[in-house]
Amino acid sequence: MMQIEECLKKIGDDIWFTEVDRNNLKIDYRIKEIIYQGNSPIQQIMILDSYDFGPMLVLDDAIQTTSNDGYIYNEMIAHVPLNIHPNPKNVLIIGGGDCGAAREVTKYPNVERIDMVEIDEMVVQTCRKYLPKVSGKLSDPRVNFIFEDGTAFVKEQRDYLYDVVIIDSSDPVGPAVKLFELEFYKDIYSNLREDGLMVCQSESPIFYSEMMVKIHKNLNSLFPIVKTYMATVPTYPGGFWTFTMGSKKYWKPNPEKFDKDTKYINKEILESCFILPKFIEKLLDDN
Amino acid sequence: MMQIEECLKKIGDDIWFTEVDRNNLKIDYRIKEIIYQGNSPIQQIMILDSYDFGPMLVLDDAIQTTSNDGYIYNEMIAHVPLNIHPNPKNVLIIGGGDCGAAREVTKYPNVERIDMVEIDEMVVQTCRKYLPKVSGKLSDPRVNFIFEDGTAFVKEQRDYLYDVVIIDSSDPVGPAVKLFELEFYKDIYSNLREDGLMVCQSESPIFYSEMMVKIHKNLNSLFPIVKTYMATVPTYPGGFWTFTMGSKKYWKPNPEKFDKDTKYINKEILESCFILPKFIEKLLDDN
Repeated sequence: MMQIEECLKKIGDDIWFTEVDRNNLKIDYRIKEIIYQGNSPIQQIMILDSYDFGPMLVLDDAIQTTSNDGYIYNEMIAHVPLNIHPNPKNVLIIGGGDCGAAREVTKYPNVERIDMVEIDEMVVQTCRKYLPKVSGKLSDPRVNFIFEDGTAFVKEQRDYLYDVVIIDSSDPVGPAVKLFELEFYKDIYSNLREDGLMVCQSESPIFYSEMMVKIHKNLNSLFPIVKTYMATVPTYPGGFWTFTMGSKKYWKPNPEKFDKDTKYINKEILESCFILPKFIEKLLDDN
Repeated sequence: MMQIEECLKKIGDDIWFTEVDRNNLKIDYRIKEIIYQGNSPIQQIMILDSYDFGPMLVLDDAIQTTSNDGYIYNEMIAHVPLNIHPNPKNVLIIGGGDCGAAREVTKYPNVERIDMVEIDEMVVQTCRKYLPKVSGKLSDPRVNFIFEDGTAFVKEQRDYLYDVVIIDSSDPVGPAVKLFELEFYKDIYSNLREDGLMVCQSESPIFYSEMMVKIHKNLNSLFPIVKTYMATVPTYPGGFWTFTMGSKKYWKPNPEKFDKDTKYINKEILESCFILPKFIEKLLDDN
């Protein structure tokens, strides 16, 4: 992890934030203002107001989401599974501390329970306060905030199961590593109803294709239906981003039913997001 | 334009190349080797071997194409129009000095003539020599290299017209500015057969959406059919990239006919590339 002094630099009158990817690529954003800077027991948290993407959430020097493009990721990780499942009532979100995925889930009136298990309460409080364009200051009564390690939560006994599980993790470094392991997916499987499905963010097919392939393999060993879909996210290095669905029964989008107010996804994208460029298909087929 | 000393920096043992976008965003690539550096009468030309994307063409400090992702742009600008036109025989390429678009066009045996009008001969020679993964060392006898200003070329009298015109320009700064003007598109229209069509790269919908909208408007004032399509290009800032087609007659892709050896586009993408995210649709509809 870089020190805070290294990722934020003053050049002339300007502040620049630098995100480093694998020591081969750096992306520098010009910053209007450091809105918030703090440390939770788990990680360093910053809200930086950038010229291009507005206020953005930075955890341990990695951009997680931004006010101006966060809706792309959040819409894609939430609406695809909730549209494919014909009647989701109980939804579990693991991670998603920026509250953006939960906010999309609240757009479904038939959903009765949204358990949001986030390891770092300070991320949630910070985003509700300083990142309203992403979090919507989330306050829907159906959302139960549970501040706990997601891998521990899915091992606990409950008297209900889930229809849809959304794994909205950060990258597989630090606290999120265990959210990419087979054992965790097995526990997710056990927490799903007999017709349930899960979706996780499955990383960049450009810079982390081994991880994308590993997730696909792990889910293939558990679920009868595994499908990868994609979106383009400007603030994720390489632009391309993938999501992988593991499902016990349903796999078909229902565009005719889609009526949500969104900024990226529409009826057509619910289906076309599963059409992958040849090089991504090849990565998944070869492994 | 930055000076060469500013865009290439030595940090420790490493060389880094920095691309600056609107003074709000910088992208830094770690470089293995400066393969070539020279000046044509028109611009500064570099071939830099990057860790992430292999050898890449840099003109006046802006990345034009790279060995590892150049195929995405070149396939999308060439195969979409050549698949939509039922029988393209005469093809004109304006720009495209890296030879990647022309190389894709040569995959169509029924194409009889490929006029490639590039203002800077040195770009072509440099890419044929140092960028074989993009240019394929292009030497197909159907390709006529014409080293001339594209705006002048389309004003000349010829005894034949084109079925497809591909405008593969750099960004609208310096020599390429005139390739984004209405007058130029009028001349393109006049150079097309009565059922001809053209495609141009139409910039980023994130950072240059006004230009994307302007191109769409200009083409709308000339062609009965105007359609925007998109792809994701990792080395173009923001990831999203758009292309706009102006057509006199044809608009429907023919996926069943597509049989080319490609790395990005496939039968499905020929159609799905026209499905635009809501925010891009809105930008085009509002204007």
